[in-house]
Amino acid sequence: MFTTALGPNPEPGLRTPKPFEQGIHNLVDGIKACVEAGLSDSTDPFADALVVWSALHGYAGLRANLLSVPWLDDERTLSHLVADLAHLLRTPPGGEL
Amino acid sequence: MFTTALGPNPEPGLRTPKPFEQGIHNLVDGIKACVEAGLSDSTDPFADALVVWSALHGYAGLRANLLSVPWLDDERTLSHLVADLAHLLRTPPGGEL
Repeated sequence: MFTTALGPNPEPGLRTPKPFEQGIHNLVDGIKACVEAGLSDSTDPFADALVVWSALHGYAGLRANLLSVPWLDDERTLSHLVADLAHLLRTPPGGEL
Repeated sequence: MFTTALGPNPEPGLRTPKPFEQGIHNLVDGIKACVEAGLSDSTDPFADALVVWSALHGYAGLRANLLSVPWLDDERTLSHLVADLAHLLRTPPGGEL
């Protein structure tokens, strides 16, 4: 979903690019599934999916290109980012993850 | 802080770019101030600042260039993104914001 062609597109009515559609639908479905399983308290999976997507896009771009920044552990950073923005519960109902 | 030159830099020991240093220090200081004021429960302001920075970078780039995506209200989205990643408390001790 990070390969959508860039560039302003002022023409109204054009279709949303397919890579965005597929990526965002997967994210929305994933967040909805977490809510249904009691693992997220998201109240707006579409809004949360947009910010998860934006944040992953930003992290991927900066992390790959700014090697002199003292980045922390990738896996921990990505878990942190997705958990916060998708409103994952740290202690789900019934116990630990 | 979004104007740092891009491009892999494999040489060890080079200084972190100044725009990054200033931007990230401002973010870390802001999150620490929120913690001290009882407005955030961040336990790692540096880690949180890195993900706030990454997410803002990603949102700015996608929002400006992918005009066919059904973005939501910018102010609400940015508040949502920063509040979640900087661990701002929705109801701070003592009442409403």
